[in-house]
Amino acid sequence: MADTKYVYRFGNTNTDGDRSMKELLGGKGANLAEMGSIGLPVPPGFTITTETCKQFLDLGEAWPEGLDEQVKAGIAHIEDEMGLKFNDPNNPLLVSVRSGAAVSMPGMMDTVLNLGLNDVAVQGLAKAMGNERFAYDAYRRFIDMFGDVVMGVHHEHFEHAIDSLKQERGVEHDTELSTKDLKELVDRYKAIYRKHTGHMFPSDPVEQLRFAINAVFLSWNSSRAIKYRRINRIAGLIGTAVNVQAMAFGNMGDDSGTGVLFTRNPSTGEKELYGEFLVNAQGEDVVAGIRTPEPIAGMANVFPKAYNDLVDATKRLELHYKNMQDIEFTVQRGRLFLLQTRNGKRTGTAAIQIAVDMVSEGLVKKKTAVRDLVEPGHLDQLLHPRFRDETSYKSDVIGTGLPASPGAAVGQVVFSADTAEEWREEGKKVILVRIETSPEDVGGMDAAEGILTSRGGMTSHAAVVARGWGKPCVAGCGDIVINYRNKTFTNGEVTIHEGEWLSLNGSTGEVILGQQDLVAPELSGGFATFMEWADEFRTINVRANADAPADARQAIEFGAEGIGLCRTEHMFFEGDRIQAVREMILAGSETERRAALAKLLPYQRDDFEGLFREMAGKPVTIRLLDPPLHEFLPHDPEGKRQMAQSLGVTLEEVQAKVDFLDEFNPMLGHRGCRLGIVYPEITEMQARAILEAAVVVAEEGKTVLPEIMVPLIGTLEEFADQKEHIKDTAEAVFAEKGKRIEYLIGTMIEIPRAALIADEIAQEAEFFSFGTNDLTQMGFGYSRDDAGKFLPYYTEKGILPDDPFQVLDQKGIGQLVKLGTERGRSTNASLKVGVCGEHGGEPSSVEFFFKTGLNYVSCSPFRVPIARLAAAQAQLRSEA
Amino acid sequence: MADTKYVYRFGNTNTDGDRSMKELLGGKGANLAEMGSIGLPVPPGFTITTETCKQFLDLGEAWPEGLDEQVKAGIAHIEDEMGLKFNDPNNPLLVSVRSGAAVSMPGMMDTVLNLGLNDVAVQGLAKAMGNERFAYDAYRRFIDMFGDVVMGVHHEHFEHAIDSLKQERGVEHDTELSTKDLKELVDRYKAIYRKHTGHMFPSDPVEQLRFAINAVFLSWNSSRAIKYRRINRIAGLIGTAVNVQAMAFGNMGDDSGTGVLFTRNPSTGEKELYGEFLVNAQGEDVVAGIRTPEPIAGMANVFPKAYNDLVDATKRLELHYKNMQDIEFTVQRGRLFLLQTRNGKRTGTAAIQIAVDMVSEGLVKKKTAVRDLVEPGHLDQLLHPRFRDETSYKSDVIGTGLPASPGAAVGQVVFSADTAEEWREEGKKVILVRIETSPEDVGGMDAAEGILTSRGGMTSHAAVVARGWGKPCVAGCGDIVINYRNKTFTNGEVTIHEGEWLSLNGSTGEVILGQQDLVAPELSGGFATFMEWADEFRTINVRANADAPADARQAIEFGAEGIGLCRTEHMFFEGDRIQAVREMILAGSETERRAALAKLLPYQRDDFEGLFREMAGKPVTIRLLDPPLHEFLPHDPEGKRQMAQSLGVTLEEVQAKVDFLDEFNPMLGHRGCRLGIVYPEITEMQARAILEAAVVVAEEGKTVLPEIMVPLIGTLEEFADQKEHIKDTAEAVFAEKGKRIEYLIGTMIEIPRAALIADEIAQEAEFFSFGTNDLTQMGFGYSRDDAGKFLPYYTEKGILPDDPFQVLDQKGIGQLVKLGTERGRSTNASLKVGVCGEHGGEPSSVEFFFKTGLNYVSCSPFRVPIARLAAAQAQLRSEA
Repeated sequence: MADTKYVYRFGNTNTDGDRSMKELLGGKGANLAEMGSIGLPVPPGFTITTETCKQFLDLGEAWPEGLDEQVKAGIAHIEDEMGLKFNDPNNPLLVSVRSGAAVSMPGMMDTVLNLGLNDVAVQGLAKAMGNERFAYDAYRRFIDMFGDVVMGVHHEHFEHAIDSLKQERGVEHDTELSTKDLKELVDRYKAIYRKHTGHMFPSDPVEQLRFAINAVFLSWNSSRAIKYRRINRIAGLIGTAVNVQAMAFGNMGDDSGTGVLFTRNPSTGEKELYGEFLVNAQGEDVVAGIRTPEPIAGMANVFPKAYNDLVDATKRLELHYKNMQDIEFTVQRGRLFLLQTRNGKRTGTAAIQIAVDMVSEGLVKKKTAVRDLVEPGHLDQLLHPRFRDETSYKSDVIGTGLPASPGAAVGQVVFSADTAEEWREEGKKVILVRIETSPEDVGGMDAAEGILTSRGGMTSHAAVVARGWGKPCVAGCGDIVINYRNKTFTNGEVTIHEGEWLSLNGSTGEVILGQQDLVAPELSGGFATFMEWADEFRTINVRANADAPADARQAIEFGAEGIGLCRTEHMFFEGDRIQAVREMILAGSETERRAALAKLLPYQRDDFEGLFREMAGKPVTIRLLDPPLHEFLPHDPEGKRQMAQSLGVTLEEVQAKVDFLDEFNPMLGHRGCRLGIVYPEITEMQARAILEAAVVVAEEGKTVLPEIMVPLIGTLEEFADQKEHIKDTAEAVFAEKGKRIEYLIGTMIEIPRAALIADEIAQEAEFFSFGTNDLTQMGFGYSRDDAGKFLPYYTEKGILPDDPFQVLDQKGIGQLVKLGTERGRSTNASLKVGVCGEHGGEPSSVEFFFKTGLNYVSCSPFRVPIARLAAAQAQLRSEA
Repeated sequence: MADTKYVYRFGNTNTDGDRSMKELLGGKGANLAEMGSIGLPVPPGFTITTETCKQFLDLGEAWPEGLDEQVKAGIAHIEDEMGLKFNDPNNPLLVSVRSGAAVSMPGMMDTVLNLGLNDVAVQGLAKAMGNERFAYDAYRRFIDMFGDVVMGVHHEHFEHAIDSLKQERGVEHDTELSTKDLKELVDRYKAIYRKHTGHMFPSDPVEQLRFAINAVFLSWNSSRAIKYRRINRIAGLIGTAVNVQAMAFGNMGDDSGTGVLFTRNPSTGEKELYGEFLVNAQGEDVVAGIRTPEPIAGMANVFPKAYNDLVDATKRLELHYKNMQDIEFTVQRGRLFLLQTRNGKRTGTAAIQIAVDMVSEGLVKKKTAVRDLVEPGHLDQLLHPRFRDETSYKSDVIGTGLPASPGAAVGQVVFSADTAEEWREEGKKVILVRIETSPEDVGGMDAAEGILTSRGGMTSHAAVVARGWGKPCVAGCGDIVINYRNKTFTNGEVTIHEGEWLSLNGSTGEVILGQQDLVAPELSGGFATFMEWADEFRTINVRANADAPADARQAIEFGAEGIGLCRTEHMFFEGDRIQAVREMILAGSETERRAALAKLLPYQRDDFEGLFREMAGKPVTIRLLDPPLHEFLPHDPEGKRQMAQSLGVTLEEVQAKVDFLDEFNPMLGHRGCRLGIVYPEITEMQARAILEAAVVVAEEGKTVLPEIMVPLIGTLEEFADQKEHIKDTAEAVFAEKGKRIEYLIGTMIEIPRAALIADEIAQEAEFFSFGTNDLTQMGFGYSRDDAGKFLPYYTEKGILPDDPFQVLDQKGIGQLVKLGTERGRSTNASLKVGVCGEHGGEPSSVEFFFKTGLNYVSCSPFRVPIARLAAAQAQLRSEA
C-alpha cells in the first residue's frame, strides 16, 4: 500500500481535498480543504485520513508503510507556505493537532496547540514575539497540554506544581510569576512528565507530532468515544482523521492583529462589514474584553494590504457559501489568515433583509434564499413584541418555565381571571399568574398581556390558548409556588405580591422581575416578498387552528389556507352559553338533554356562520365536542353554589354530578367521540349547527367547505356510529332547507390504536387529521400536564433529545403517523391527511410531515408563517 | 350448466353432503348432512347450495337451468323417506324452509314452518292430528308467517285481523276462538294477503316453496344482511344456502312425543342419559312448562322401539362427535327423529369427570379430551366457592358490576378497611364496600370475604389484589352510590346499611341482598389427572404474578413454573415499612432519601429471600417500583395529621408534599422507571435488596434465578440508564459478598412507543414482559379506572366485542405485542418474551400469545390452571 494517499494538504497552494470528502477527511478537514481550494488564506496544514486511522488500529497501533514519508511531506508543505521551519531559533514553525471524524463527536482527543516548542524553539518564539515571558508561558502550557491530552498525565499534577511555585514566591496570581519563574516551571513540568510517563519530554517536533497523531488515532476507541457512538447510534464510520495546521500569531508586534467580522450587519441586515479588530493581540484578547477593539473599518488604515485581502475574502466567501459569513481572522506580520468562517447568526429582521438583498444583488437565487437564508424561528421575532435588551435582565430572572407562547409581555401580577378583567377595565396592564388555567379563565387570559402558570406543559390549556392568540405565555414554571389565598407567588427567595410588575419572555420561558422595555413587532416589506417566494416552492398546505371568526381573520392575514382545527368547545364558555352547557350536563334524561342542546344550537350556528364567512372558499375542519364534561362544571364551592342557584337545582345535585363526572385520568376518560356515542344528541346538535350555518353562508353566494371531524376515534365502529348520526342529521337539514352542501366526514388520529387500524377507519373516513399532542401523550404515556416533573430532567440528561410535546418524536410517535398515513391510503387512495397537533408549526416536525406525504399541516395563526417557510424549506431540501 | 349439482339431499338415505362442505351448503346444511351421513334419524330434506344463490342473483333473480328439476327431485326424496306427499288429504307432507350461510349471520330470512298447507292439506293435517282446531290454527299461522317472512306483508295486518275477530266474538284470548272462528280467520288472512301482494295466496306447495326459496336468496342482499356483513367484516362469501326439511310432529297422538336429553349428567358428569320427554306434545310444550315432563328413562316403557333407537343414537353421537351431546328429538307415530344435536353444556365438575371417563372408556384420546372436553372457564368453578343455587336469587340482585375476581362470598357490609379488620377479629364475616380501594386498604381487603367497589375496572387495585388472593370481587358497580358518612350504599331503590348481609357473585358481577348458601370448591382426583394431561401438550410456560412468599406457594400448588411479576411496592404497605417509605418521599435531599431507603432495604431483602426460597429453581421476575409516589401518602386529613406526627414534621410539610405530588393523570405521570431515573437511589436500593437476597438463598444451596424488570420504559436511554445502575449495584454486592449470581435485566413493554422501538430496546434488554394492562390503557386511551363510564355501553352496543381489559384486543393492542416481539427478536435472537398483564390468564388471549411466539404467560395464581389449559388447547389447535 505504499502508494496509498494518507495525507491531504491544504493551504494557499497545493490543496488536495474539498468539502465533498467528509468521509475521508472528517468534517473539519474537509472544511479546511474547501477554504483552501477556493483560494482563501487559511494557515496551511494537512489532514491524515480516517482510513489511515483504521489501518493504524488494524495493524496493532502501527503506522502503515508510507505514512511517515507523507507526514514529512505534509510538514514540508506547511514549512514552505509559512516560510518557517521547526526548531528555528529565530522564528520557529508551531502547529496545532486536532481530531475530526466525519460526524462531530465529543469524546475524542482535544486540541494540542503550539506543538513544536522545545528548548530551542522557545527562544525563537521569544525573539519572534519580542516577548520572552510570553514564550516560556506558552512552553510550560504546551508541556502541560501535551502531557495531559497526548500522554494521559493528569492536568492536576501540573496545577499542583504551579501552585507550589506561587506559594514559594508568595504570589497569588499566575501573572505575578516572572519569566524566570516560568523557566523554572518548564523544568518542573518536564520532571513531572518524566515521572508519570517514564520518558523524557520529547524535544523533537517530529517526534512530538508522531505521539500526538497516535493519541488522536487511539482516542477513536476510547471508552468515552465508544459510549458516545453507542448512545447516538453512530455506526458505519471507520475512524477519525487528524488535522495538523500551522499556528498563526496575531501578537507578533504592531504589524500583527486579530479580529472578527460579519460580512453584513447581523442586526439590521445592512450591506456593510460589521466587526472589530485589535492590533498585536490574540483571539483570547478580543473575547476577554481587557482592551477595547476598534471598528473593522479602521483596519484599512492600520493594515491596508491585509484589509484589502480581507474585503476581497468576504466577497469571495459570500459568493462561495451563498450566505452571510461570520469570520475569525489573524494578521501575522501583515499577512492575513482566516481562522474560521461560518454562516453568521442574525436577527429575524436581518435574515429577511439579507435574503431579499442577496437575491436582488444576483448573489443567490430565490430558491437558495428561501432554503438557506432565513430560519423559521427568525419569523417568530418579527411577529411578537420583544424586550429591547435581551441580555441585561438576566440577574432579574426569578424562574424559568416552558417557552409556551413566544413574545414578551410586561404587566402587574394578578392571580384570578376576574381580577385580570377588572384591572384591565381600569386601564391596567396585567400578567395573569395561575397554577393552571381552565376554560373558565379565558376571559381573564384575554385581558392579560401575558400568562404564567406553575404547572402544565407545552400543550396545556394555557399554552394552547395563548399561542392561538399570539399572547406570550410561560407555562409549567416549577420554580415558583403560587399561593392564591395570600395572592403571592415565590421562588423560595423572592415573594411577589398582587400588583407588582413582572415581565415574561414567552420565547425563552424566563420570568423577570420588574418592567422591561418592549419593542413592538414590525413586518417589513421584505417579509411579504420573502413569504411569497416561500409559497412559490411550498407543496404542502398550511392551515390554522382557529376557534372564532377573529382568529380566522388573523390566520388568513398570516397566510393560512384553511382551518385545520376549530375546537367547538372553546365557544361554550362565551356569554350565557355555559348556562345551557351545564343544563345539558345536569339533564336527567335524553329529552332534557335535547332541550338544553336546543338552546346551544343557535350560538354554535352563529359561530360557524362567522367562520365560514371568513374562510369562504377555504376548507374549515370542525372538531366535535372533545373535553370531558366535568371541564364545564365549576370546581370551587362558590361556583357550585352559583350554578345551583342559576339553574334552580340544589347544591347537592350539582355536587353529585361533579362527583359522578370526576375522573382519575381525565385524559384517558369519557371524552371525545365517547361522549357523542353515549349521548348522540350532542353530535346531532353540533352537526346540525355546522350544516345549517353552511347552508346560510352558501346562500349568501360564498363557497363553504365544511369538514366535520370526529375526535378520539379508536375503533372503526365508533366512527361508523358517529358518521351515521352526522349523515342522518345532514340529510334532515338539507331536506328542511331545500339545499345540499358538499361536506366531508373524517376523524382525528390521536389514539395509538387508531393509527394501527387506520386501514379499517379509512374505509369510512374521508380525511384524517393527526392529533399529535394526544398521540404523544398516549404513545409515550406522558400526561402533558404532569410530565413537567420529569421531562426537564429527561432532556437535560439526554434521555430525550427534545420535549416531545414541542418537537415531534419522529422515531417513535412518527412511526404511528407514517403507519397511519400509509395504512389509511392503502384502503382509501383519496384520503386527505393532515396534522392539527401543536407540532404542525414546528419546523423539524413540518419537514417530517412533508416527507410522510401529508396534505397539510395546521397550527396556531401566529405560527402559520413559520410553517409556510418550514414547508417550503422541506420541499427544497428534498430536491437537493 | 345443466349438470351442475344445485341440490344436496340429506336424511336416512341418500345423503349427499357432510360437515366438510360448509362453504357450499352453509353451516346448517352441512350439519344436517353430517347427521344424515352417519345414519342418524334426521327428518329428511335437501339443501340448495350457496352457489345457486349467487347464480340466481347473477341471472337477475332467475333460477338457473336444471334447478327446477333438482328441487323436484329433492321433494321426491323427502316424500319417499317420510312416506308422505304434498297435498295428501289424509296426512300431507309439510316442510320448513330456512336460510343458512357458511357463517352464522342474522339479518337474513327467518324460518318458514308448515309450508305445504293449503285448503286440502289442512284437512289432511286435521285427520292426521285428530285435531281440526290445531290444523286450522296451524294454517292461519302459516299464512301469516308466509305473508310476513316471504312476501313482506307486515305481521301487524294479520294481528289486526285476529284482534278484530276476538272483539267481534267478545273473547280475550286466542285460545277462546273456536275452530269455526279459525276457519273464518284463514279466509280473512287470505284476503289480507291478496290485498297487500296483489295475488291470490298460492295454494300449490311447490309454488309456495319456489316463493320461499326466492325469498331466502333475496334476503342475502337485504340491507340488514349487508350491514351485518359490513360491520362484522364478513367477506368472501358468495351467498346463502336454502334448507328445505320435512316437518316432524310429536303431537300426532299417544304414539308421538318429544323430548330433550344429555348423553351424560351435565352436573356431575356421571355416565347416564339425563333428560325428559312428553307424550303427544311439541317442543314448545316442554319449554312452556304447562305439562310436567317425565324422566327420559320412562320412555323405554312408552316407546320402546324409539327409545332403543335413541339410546343407540346417543352412543353413535358420542362416538362421532367425541363429546357429550345435548339432543332434541321428536317421535312421530313411533318413529324417532333427531331435530338437533350439539355439544352439551356442563359444570366444571362434570367437564372434568366426562373428560377423564371418556379417555378411560377409550372413546377419546387424551389429546382430544384436553383440546375439546373442558373449557378453561370450567376450572374457575372448581377453584372458587359458588352459590348452591345460581338461579333462584335473581330477584334479589340489586346491582351488577364487573366480574373482577371469580367466586361467591357472603358477609356483613362494612365501609372501611379498619372496620373490616376489627369485625373480622370479632369473628364476623364481612364484605368490604368501597368506592375504590387503595394500597392502604389491603389489610381490610384481606380480612373481608369479598370486595365490592363502585368504581374501577378489571385491572383496578381492588380487582388485581382480589384476583391475586382468589378472593371474590365485584368492581366498578356503577349501579350503586356509596355514602361513607352515613355508612350506607343504595342503588336508588334499596339502601343497605353497615352490618346488613350481602352476597357477591364475583364470577358474574352480581350484588345480591341477604345471605346466599355457599358451596365450597373441591378439587377431584380427576382434576389433577386432567391438568397433567394438559401439561403434556403445553409448549408455552405459565408463571404466576405473586408478590409475597404465601402467594408464591399458592402459585406453585396451582402449577406455576415461576413468577412472572412480583410487584415490589405491594410490600411497602406491610407493618412499619410505610413509615420508611414516607420518610423517603419527604426527604429533601439525596442523602436524606438514601437514609430512608436504607431502612427499607432489610424489609425488601427479607421479602425477596422468601420468594427465592419458595421458587427455588424457578425464575422470579421482580419489577422495580412502579406506582407514583403519591400513592404512598395519606389523602384524608386524619392520615396526614398522623403522618406528620409520626415523622416529626409539620402538617404543612406533609400537605405541601401531597400537593406537589398530585397529578392530573397519574397513570401517565411520574411513575415506573421515571422514578428510578430521577431518583436512582431507589433503583439501587431495590437492586441491592434483590441481589443480596439472591446471594443469601444461593448460599443455602438453592438455585436462584432473579430477573430484574424495569417498568414503563419508553426509550432506549431510560433502559440504559437504569441498567447501568443495576449492574453497578450488582457488581458491588457480588464484590462485598464474594459470590456471583446469574441474573437477567429486562423490561416491561407497556408503553406503545416501547413496542415500536423494541428493536432498539432489545439490544440492551435480556427479556421483555408485555404489560398488556398499560398497553391497553395507552393504546386505546382508556383509563382503567374511568372507562366504566362508557365501556359497558360500548360492549353492549357492539362498538367493542369485549372489555379490552378482560380480553386482549388482538386487532389493535395485539399488533403492538406482535410487533414488539418480532422487532425485539430481530436484534436479540435470544430475547425471552412473556406477558404479565391480566390477559395472561384469559384463554383467547393466551392463545394469541402462544401464536405470537411468547415464551410464557403470567397471571394471578388462581388463574394458573386456566392458563395451563388454555395454553395446551392453543398448542393442540395449532396442530389441527
